[in-house]
This record gives sequence, C-alpha cells and structure tokens, in this order.
Amino acid sequence: MAARQREISVSEFFTKNRHLLGFDSPTKALLTTIKEAVDNSLDACEEAGILPDLEVTIQALAENRYRIEVTDNGPGIVKAQVPKIFGKLLYGSKFHRLRQSRGQQGIGISAAGMYGQLTTGKPIVIESRTNRRQAAHRYELVIDTLRNQPVIKRDIEVDWEAPHGTRVAIELEGTYKKGRHGVETYLRQTALANPHVEIRFQGPAEGEVLAFQRASSTLPPEALEIQPHPHGVEVGLLLRMLKESKARRLSSFFQTEFSRVGPTLAQRIVEGAELQPRSSPKRVTAEAAEKLIASIRQVRIPAPPTNCLSPIGEERLLASLKEQIAADFYAAVSRSPAVYRGNPFQVEIGLAYGGDLTSDDLVSLYRFANRVPLLYQQGGCALFKSVLSTNWKAYGLQQSRGALPSGPLILMAHVASVWVPFTSESKEAVAGYDEIVREMKLALQEVGRQLARHVRRTQRRRDADRKRAYIEKYIPHIGIALQDILGLSEKQEAEIVETLTDTLARSRKM
Amino acid sequence: MAARQREISVSEFFTKNRHLLGFDSPTKALLTTIKEAVDNSLDACEEAGILPDLEVTIQALAENRYRIEVTDNGPGIVKAQVPKIFGKLLYGSKFHRLRQSRGQQGIGISAAGMYGQLTTGKPIVIESRTNRRQAAHRYELVIDTLRNQPVIKRDIEVDWEAPHGTRVAIELEGTYKKGRHGVETYLRQTALANPHVEIRFQGPAEGEVLAFQRASSTLPPEALEIQPHPHGVEVGLLLRMLKESKARRLSSFFQTEFSRVGPTLAQRIVEGAELQPRSSPKRVTAEAAEKLIASIRQVRIPAPPTNCLSPIGEERLLASLKEQIAADFYAAVSRSPAVYRGNPFQVEIGLAYGGDLTSDDLVSLYRFANRVPLLYQQGGCALFKSVLSTNWKAYGLQQSRGALPSGPLILMAHVASVWVPFTSESKEAVAGYDEIVREMKLALQEVGRQLARHVRRTQRRRDADRKRAYIEKYIPHIGIALQDILGLSEKQEAEIVETLTDTLARSRKM
Repeated sequence: MAARQREISVSEFFTKNRHLLGFDSPTKALLTTIKEAVDNSLDACEEAGILPDLEVTIQALAENRYRIEVTDNGPGIVKAQVPKIFGKLLYGSKFHRLRQSRGQQGIGISAAGMYGQLTTGKPIVIESRTNRRQAAHRYELVIDTLRNQPVIKRDIEVDWEAPHGTRVAIELEGTYKKGRHGVETYLRQTALANPHVEIRFQGPAEGEVLAFQRASSTLPPEALEIQPHPHGVEVGLLLRMLKESKARRLSSFFQTEFSRVGPTLAQRIVEGAELQPRSSPKRVTAEAAEKLIASIRQVRIPAPPTNCLSPIGEERLLASLKEQIAADFYAAVSRSPAVYRGNPFQVEIGLAYGGDLTSDDLVSLYRFANRVPLLYQQGGCALFKSVLSTNWKAYGLQQSRGALPSGPLILMAHVASVWVPFTSESKEAVAGYDEIVREMKLALQEVGRQLARHVRRTQRRRDADRKRAYIEKYIPHIGIALQDILGLSEKQEAEIVETLTDTLARSRKM
Repeated sequence: MAARQREISVSEFFTKNRHLLGFDSPTKALLTTIKEAVDNSLDACEEAGILPDLEVTIQALAENRYRIEVTDNGPGIVKAQVPKIFGKLLYGSKFHRLRQSRGQQGIGISAAGMYGQLTTGKPIVIESRTNRRQAAHRYELVIDTLRNQPVIKRDIEVDWEAPHGTRVAIELEGTYKKGRHGVETYLRQTALANPHVEIRFQGPAEGEVLAFQRASSTLPPEALEIQPHPHGVEVGLLLRMLKESKARRLSSFFQTEFSRVGPTLAQRIVEGAELQPRSSPKRVTAEAAEKLIASIRQVRIPAPPTNCLSPIGEERLLASLKEQIAADFYAAVSRSPAVYRGNPFQVEIGLAYGGDLTSDDLVSLYRFANRVPLLYQQGGCALFKSVLSTNWKAYGLQQSRGALPSGPLILMAHVASVWVPFTSESKEAVAGYDEIVREMKLALQEVGRQLARHVRRTQRRRDADRKRAYIEKYIPHIGIALQDILGLSEKQEAEIVETLTDTLARSRKM
C-alpha cells in the first residue's frame, strides 16, 4: 500500500475536480470561461484607473466547440508575467493582499485555459500590449498539468491598434445556452452591478449583438490595500508573521504588521501577555504566542479601515435597478462595513417590486460578490439562505415554509469584501459565516420594512379604489333618483353628479 | 503591479480558504476533524480486510479548546509514509486510482492537523504500529505552510497493546455541540451506513459514553480498482496518457490503459481515426488525438466494470433503518450502477415512514457519499435538489413549491462512486452532474411509488375504520328497533346484533 502513495499536483487535482472550478457541464464551462476572463479584465482596468471597455465574442467552430475571446482596454501585461498568470494554477497578485477585487485566488483564468486544453488540445492564446512604444505580443501557452507549469509554444509580435490592452482567446468544448444561466444574463447582471463598464457582445449566431453602455462615466472609488487586523489572527499565523517580520522589537512588530495598532495598543497587547515590548519577535515561543493571542482578544482595537472596500452604494443601486427593471417600487440599503475573521466586508440589498414583474412566481434573487454576478449554486449560498430564513409574511409577501417568498419582486444582494469566502473555487456561492448572514438579515429587514410600507400603502389604495369604483357606479343613479324626487332639471342633475364625484375625489386624496 | 505577482502555496491557499475544507466555524471544525480521522481509519481497516473497531475521544482542555483522538485497529502506517500522509496537503494513495473509498483527495487529515496547528500552535500527534515484531512509534508533526511540507518535531517508541493500529490526536479550537450537526448524529449515521463498524465514543463530559455495536460481522464486498473507461477521456488527458504509456503500439495502448477494450474494439477505435494499430502512442499528434476521441465516441464500448463499487445494498439498508428508526413502513432501492464522465457510480435510497415520526415537519434527509454521512451544505447538494424537485404530492405527501415535502418521513440517500464529485474539498455536498441527478430521481420515484401504495392503503384502511366505527355505533339501535317491530326476545335481539357485527367484520377483511 505504501508504495502507491504519491504527490498530487494542483492541476491534476483540479482536472479531476473540474466542477470545483465551475467546469462540470458544457454550458457552465462556457460561462465560467467568459466570467474568469471578464473578471480579470475589469480588475486590471480599474487598478490602472481606466474606464473598462470590453469586447466579448463567442464563435461557434463545430457542434459543442466554441472559441471565446475577451478583449479589454486595460494596461496590458508584461511579457515576463504572461506565462504564469495564464498557465499556472495558484499564482497571482491578489491572493496575498487585503483589498476588494474580483479575482482573489490565482486560479480562474489558468483553469479556463486548462479546461480548453483538456477538451480540445488547443493552447490558450494571449495578445497584449503595454504601451505605445512596445509592440503587441501574441503568446500561445499550454499547461504541463503534471507539474503545474506553463509552457510557451509560440511568441510573435502582432499588430494592435490601441495603445494598450489584452485579449484572451480560449477554444473549448461547451454549450451555448440562453436563459437564467446564460451569457446574456451574466452580462446584464454585470452591467447592473458595474454601471461604469461598457461591454459589447457578439454571440455565436449571425447578428447576435448586444451592447451594454455605461450608465456612469466615473470609476468607483479605488479600494486600498490594508494590513491584517489583529482580531483575525490565530496562533499559527501569528507565529509565522513573527518569524518573517523585519521588525526588531515586539512593539514595533504589532505597529508595522497590523492595521489599527499604534504605540499604546501595541504596548498593551505585549504587556497583557507578560512579555517585554523590546524583546525580539523571532524569539517568541509557541506558548508566548498563545498568550499574545489571548491578550489581543482582551484589548479593544478599532474596527479595520474600510477604504479597502468599494461597495456599489445605495444611489447607484437604485439608479441601476430603475434603469434595467420596470417596477412600481424600488429600495436599496448599503450597510456599514462589518468584520468576519478580521476581514472587512459590506452587504448591500436592492429591491424592485410590482410593475411588470409577475406575482405568481417565487422571488428572483440576483446574487453578487465583489460586483460579480453569481449564477449557479444558489441553494448553497449564504445570501440565498438569508433570504429564505427571513420572515417575508411580515412584509406583506406570501411564503411557504422552507421556500423563497413569492410575489412580483426582484432582490439584488451584494457582498463586498477583501476576501469573499466562497463555498468553492468556482466562486458561485458565499459560505455561511455567521457575521455575513447576520448583516444580510439586517439589510433584508431594512428593505423589508420599506417594502411593507409600500405594500400596505398599495393595499390601502387598492381598497379605497375599490370603494370609490363602487360608489362611482351609483352616483348617476343617485342623481336620477334625486331628479325624480325633487323634480330637478337635467342640468341640476348633472351638477349634483359632478359635485358628488368631486367630493369623492377630494376625500380620496386625503 | 508585476512585482507583486507570486506563487501561492496549497497550504496557504487552504489556510485562507479554510471553509473549503470544512473549518469555517468552531463547531464544524471539531466535527470535520473527527470525520477526516474516522474516514481514514475505516478506509485503512477495510483495505486490510479488518473489521473496523474505532475509539473516538473528545477531551475538553479549556473553553473552546479540545483534544480529538481517534484510535483504530487498522494495519498501521510505516514510518516513511507518516509525515507526508499527515503533514502534506495533496498527497495520498487514493487520488490516482479508480475505486470507491471514503478519502479521495489527499487533503483531509493533513488539513485537520493544519487547522489544529493554526488555532493552537500544537503539532498533530500520530501513534502507529504495523505488526507484533515492530514497536509502536509516536510522531509529533507540524506543517510548514509556506512550503506545504511536513516537519517531524519528535519521534519516539511507545507502548501499544494491540498488534497493529493507528491513533491520531489533534488539539484545536472548536465548539462541541449536540444536535443535527453534532458528533453524535454523525456517528449514529455512520453506523447506519456501515453496519459492520464498531465505534466507542467518549464525549467531553463525565460519563458521556456511547457505543455503536456492529450489526453485521461481515465486511462489505471489497471494491476493486479499475482502469479508466474510454468514454470518460478527453483530448488533453488522452495526449498525456499516450505520452506516458509503456505500450509500444496504439492497439495495445488502448487494451492496457483502459477498461473494457479488447483487441477488436482497440482496432476499431484506431482505424476509426484513420491511424495504424502498429504506430507508436508517443508519436500521436494533437490532431490525431482529436480523431481518436471522435472515433471513441462512435464506437460502442460496454459500460465500465462495477466491482469497483461497494454499495450498502437494499437488504442492509432496510435492516439498518428498521434497527435505528421506529416507523410503520420501510422501503429501499439500490439502483444499478451508471456512469458520469467515465466514472461508475450507484445511487441508493432508503425510506422510513409513519410510526413515531412526526408528520408536521419537513421530511428529514440523511445524505451519504461512499458511506460517509454529509451533515452540512444540504442546500447545495444534488441529493437534496433531487428530493426537492420530485413531485411528492403524487406519492401522497404535502409539498409547497420550492420546499421539501412534509410528513412523517426519513429519507436516506447514498451515492457511491470511484470519484464522488463533491462541491468543495470539505466533501459536504455532491455536485449536480446530470447523470447523478437522473439516477437519484429514478430511485426516488421507485421508493415514492412504494410509499404511495402504503399511504393509499393506510388511507383506505383509515376510511374503512371510520365507516366501521360509524356502523358499529348503530348496530345496537338496529337490534332494538327490530326487536320492537318484530317482537323478538332479548336473546334473538342479541343474536341479530352479533350477526350484524360479524358480517361487518368479515366484509372489512376483504
């Protein structure tokens, strides 16, 4: 038995577990590939302060075989980085920093390339230009899955009109479908959560063209990188940080490596653990580290800074909903930032009710994480579960036990964080950390109360309308009756009917 | 920006993404740790043909700090393998073979050790003995998370009474809770799906002892290793297999590397791709590999062998349910094996209805994969979704739209496979591959129909009983009336009442 034991390479692991990356069905594989490329493009543009301008093209090559191409106007990628970014799983710039971005794991786009390679044998093709003075390059890459290493098959100079940008092309086995899990839905929801983005889409069919124009020409406020917060740190990580730090004293260690720790707090933490502020971080033992953790938990430390987050905001949420969905009533709530395991995060809910929406169906829930639409795994998502476990009857909706409420309602739920805890690498659902669920529920209750007021108002108005219609129906008859009894002229009768109608209208307005 | 790009080690990745491994809350962390250790022990015992005998101990060390210990009577682990098995993520013997087992990823137990180390700074402790002639060893291990490498801190000889076995001890931050997601529920369901296993449990409280005795003293039939099936292979993998194979001719390549391919089929595949059976596998180009895949898809190949699976079986399922759950009606269905992406799998459903079960609640669903209970992430699980989307009203249960049915029912769903596609590394939910959902639904319909017959029979009987009670109530009055009308004696009246009651009873039996 012992002889059979061996190492498993990351790419072997994900090849076998492709559903973890969102490649379990041909439909999903196609969507995931586009999603990963678009995520990367949007992150790159925003980081470089460029208003994103994207082109997404799907070309049908044969039955179940497509070529996906995503082109951006981003800053481009320098030659040295191309192979690892696109041809190595678990590699990137976003994993080791604390700051909101769409990508975070260093897996997505390489995984899409690997899936393409696996199903068609074709390399991933990258074209990129970084500035006017440099020619654009075209690279053809494959992944050596046994070693998780990129291999450049070809590298040539190509023409590129714009001064900078990147194009990724992947050929893959997939299925192109419309509908709830389709590319169009994904792009539409991307536009909803990213009003500053412009996307042109060319589908596989002749003339299948869509354009999502930007509704706002200002970039969202830039998310800044922060240090870890002491309350998110455990013994093991602290020990590693102590060993790796360049700080020479414990007190300066806490000030330089963590956010929100100044000289006073640093001293209080160190002394709480009965250690010397001047002693060396490298010499702290496991036992002493445990005491430091206990001391950290005793000390009140301000919440982490929240400029690492870039929420959509109530105003933009409302504007987006009004632009895209024809409804009677809109509401939006953007909660203040909160913290789970030391990571700042923020929850936002938007809501559209009534109007053209159908009332017999279950509520539609659009889920977003760091502005990226989540189209799959709704049942496993904390955002969904929070909606499920909210008592919507209290807000005037129908709801069966264990089910979503029903009614003419679209809910938009967004969680933004420096590290969104997804339930799998495919980033389709948010894990149920208590703090996130709590914030979600508070936000839902807030929009719920606004909704309830509207529903009650509508109900009252409908009741009043019914009464009014009822009375209106009889006003002419009252006129005729009075004419009969009092012997009024036609004109007098008409006057009475008018007066009665008028009185009714006035009483109705109050 | 480029300067910030860097590699992400697997253990760093999972440290930050601990919820992917089932360590997102203290309660879950404790359960997951026990689960990983028990999975390993059961696999080891069964592979060695030993009836498993386990001891699970939870010791409370402080508030939120526990020591978990799992001891087995398995074959033990040789010294050379201990560090990598327990101290390196993505390492093991089960990933590269096709055969049903509880572990498959080479992550679980090392992840539990890493979590312990992270939260307490303490090493994972392993004791193991492989036979009477060797002394038992005790190892203390830590993981270097930056490099994903094990480091042995200590290795000493210790006493061990039994001739062979392994004990794993992990100290961790956690919470011990009872209830639906608790250790006891997990052990109870483990016993339900593994009647050949004996488990003694010692909880953290004084006298908190449980014993699950084996209901069967025969091991389940051994699952055998198979070769991959041609229908599960894609271009990328085929190319790699062609390069790595020792076969010197294409025809022998297909016969030696795949299951179900003999000389005739091999020839048909190769010729279908317009290649020569005698040409070298190593020289096959990407284009030729594509043709081979196309040819494989044209050729009819028998389904893969299914002796790689070890289902529970209908009889054992029924026996287990009857032993553990007091109900009126039981049913079990074990479907024939099917295939997804070339991987054989098999679905089983057990059902207990009525009796002591409460009828107001939603149905309880116990989910299992390769005989392991799945306690979390129900909402994201294909087994759950299949139950949800079955029309239970047709089988006599209440069901609201979008919700589980309600009624006095426990459902047990088991999927067994050489490679269960879990939705995350924590192995809590099964991914929704179409083939698996289809098999689940067919199995549910089968037990559903059996249930419907029982529910209808019960309903008919209840109606008849009601009628009978109604008639019985009037029989004496009929007797009295007849006595009056016909002037009968007391004795004659009593006879008539008796005859009528008798007739009623006989008609009821028919």
